[in-house]
Amino acid sequence: MSIRFAERNKRLGTETAFAVGAEAAQFSLTGARVYPFHLGDLNIPTPEHIVEAAIRAIREGKTGYCPTPGILPLREALAEDISRSRDLNLDAGNVSIQTGGKPVIGKFIMTLMNPGDEVLYPNPGYPIYESMINFHEGVGKPYGFRETEKGFALDLDAIERQISPKTKLLIYNNYHNPTSAESDEEEMKRLADICLKHNLYVLSDEAYFDMLYDSKGMSISRFPGLFERTVILFTFSKKFAMTGWRLGAAIGPKEIIDAISLFNVNDESCTNHFVQWAGLAAIKGPMEPYREMLKTLKERRDTSVEILNQMKGISVGKPNSTFYLFANITAAMKDLGMQDVEDFRKQVLYKTGVSFTTRNHFGTPLPGEKQKYIRLAYSGINTSDIREGLGKMKELLG
Amino acid sequence: MSIRFAERNKRLGTETAFAVGAEAAQFSLTGARVYPFHLGDLNIPTPEHIVEAAIRAIREGKTGYCPTPGILPLREALAEDISRSRDLNLDAGNVSIQTGGKPVIGKFIMTLMNPGDEVLYPNPGYPIYESMINFHEGVGKPYGFRETEKGFALDLDAIERQISPKTKLLIYNNYHNPTSAESDEEEMKRLADICLKHNLYVLSDEAYFDMLYDSKGMSISRFPGLFERTVILFTFSKKFAMTGWRLGAAIGPKEIIDAISLFNVNDESCTNHFVQWAGLAAIKGPMEPYREMLKTLKERRDTSVEILNQMKGISVGKPNSTFYLFANITAAMKDLGMQDVEDFRKQVLYKTGVSFTTRNHFGTPLPGEKQKYIRLAYSGINTSDIREGLGKMKELLG
Repeated sequence: MSIRFAERNKRLGTETAFAVGAEAAQFSLTGARVYPFHLGDLNIPTPEHIVEAAIRAIREGKTGYCPTPGILPLREALAEDISRSRDLNLDAGNVSIQTGGKPVIGKFIMTLMNPGDEVLYPNPGYPIYESMINFHEGVGKPYGFRETEKGFALDLDAIERQISPKTKLLIYNNYHNPTSAESDEEEMKRLADICLKHNLYVLSDEAYFDMLYDSKGMSISRFPGLFERTVILFTFSKKFAMTGWRLGAAIGPKEIIDAISLFNVNDESCTNHFVQWAGLAAIKGPMEPYREMLKTLKERRDTSVEILNQMKGISVGKPNSTFYLFANITAAMKDLGMQDVEDFRKQVLYKTGVSFTTRNHFGTPLPGEKQKYIRLAYSGINTSDIREGLGKMKELLG
Repeated sequence: MSIRFAERNKRLGTETAFAVGAEAAQFSLTGARVYPFHLGDLNIPTPEHIVEAAIRAIREGKTGYCPTPGILPLREALAEDISRSRDLNLDAGNVSIQTGGKPVIGKFIMTLMNPGDEVLYPNPGYPIYESMINFHEGVGKPYGFRETEKGFALDLDAIERQISPKTKLLIYNNYHNPTSAESDEEEMKRLADICLKHNLYVLSDEAYFDMLYDSKGMSISRFPGLFERTVILFTFSKKFAMTGWRLGAAIGPKEIIDAISLFNVNDESCTNHFVQWAGLAAIKGPMEPYREMLKTLKERRDTSVEILNQMKGISVGKPNSTFYLFANITAAMKDLGMQDVEDFRKQVLYKTGVSFTTRNHFGTPLPGEKQKYIRLAYSGINTSDIREGLGKMKELLG
């Protein structure tokens, strides 16, 4: 019996990067050594005080239902923490706890986008943006990035050029996956002005807000008039090495947050109760493990960047944020006579075990896009393995 | 600035029962003693071996991402367990782990229902069915229950009568919230035949499958031709007293389950990693705590039923399943000269502290519905408090 699926399923996308992980796992079953640069996961344990807080909460019986938008102490603590780090003035009513940062994407779109509305979103970018826009029958308007001396920058012209009376939302992922693009204050201000001028709602995906090596994060929500139209995607996953705990939040104007919490009522009911107490310990607790993690990641970044830039035909900047490197391999591919980044990825994987994703795992390349890129994540691989793996890759490419 | 919400938000429903909980909490702040019969939560702790398994998993670092449809050992164990209890032949491919049972409702509907498709669903019934049908632009066709000597029974005539070529889905919640209706084999077989004859997909909400006092549960998916068209909503919440852990599963034909897991990719990524290991311990572990819980609940049920039936104008059967009592208060309301069950609820709450929900919290009454009902949950209140609270209510009603 063939299933009569709903039509809408055809509009649902996926993370094709998962297939790379599966391919690498398959390859390692043959006995091959794999160097995992494809993962956005952290191979760094959750700090001990967070673990102990979770255990305490379980033993204390924090195992029944809790309020749909989350436990009040966590919402209050997050409101305080985000007020400080983003220069805002929030209370618990501005916070809806979620099972990770990702659910905020779909809930933001469902709450504010009508079918036919246009949504500006980054491409290359996290593939779930496009998937959720299409699924809920919006019209996606991808904007790209320019490679500059100082790293990647928003293509503000592409953003402004595509705005029409139907444009209602903009998705902005500063400290950007996969390019590590980081707006300076001027760029962010210009983007804020565009949103104000065209009356756009903003999803500010701040998943990597705390993954900064040499500066403090800045949120677009701090510019005048912006908070009223912005939902911040917050996650505990990165800063506190809590990816598999599934804890995040939607943060924004109370009216929108209430609407988002109504989706909680209809879907997950609430986020795991005792995990929220662990989240409270994370926010209130010592930041030493976080600083240690940044130090570790910085070392991995520096090692990776150094070796990558020694490879023939590969160039990459040294980004200040995220744990990704978006390396330009245009010249290397030309040398190898390759057209398709997928061929490059496979050749490197099967000849050296170095596994990474490519630009194509982050959306369909835009018209006129000529440069070729791969994305290496250094969050799930130790410095010594980075050295060994990239050493082999360097040997392969000459 | 007033928010320009998406139109679809207007179609999203809620659980109005939450408002009763809030009202009771507010009343208790005045110093009043409240007897909570409004909660579907359990005041019974999660069994120790499950708690310890969670703690072990956290300490072992099961804190990173896991596969989107869940960890393989849990999917395998659930497949085996459900195969045995439902008389099926499943493997891990038939199981997609979810953050509770509730998300299965929306995902089932999104996966199989097109806008305009008709969906049969129970009313009175869990309000999220209707909310998700409306939200995703289906046409809800409510069916009711008949009060019989042996408790509530499906109104199969109402089901058949409403089927049209546009009817595609049926939601069936055997061991039913709020009526505790339980199909005998004959009734279930008749329903299965209807589904086969009219080519309907079935959501079998089996949240209370294990909350049976004097018999074993039966699933509609065991009838020939039914499994291929059925998704079972499974939850760990009740059997293992794990409501706040948020762990459940969608179980069904592999093709549908894969489609449901694609929603996991787009929403929560995966369910909390270490909670899944606790779920594995729950399924594989000793069933003594579960049997003890049933014994406790049975005592509460018997006490409640006895006192309720002593009240003037109230009658209620002794259901074999769930932890709800759906008491007929038609005569009591007539004595009090009341038309609205909400007036009855408020009077009892403010005069005795006994807090419960009514038929109206489970959907809009159907045309021709004349009997009046309240729902008392005995999952969150001890026997001595049941005795005290219902004693006061008996005094009030005479």
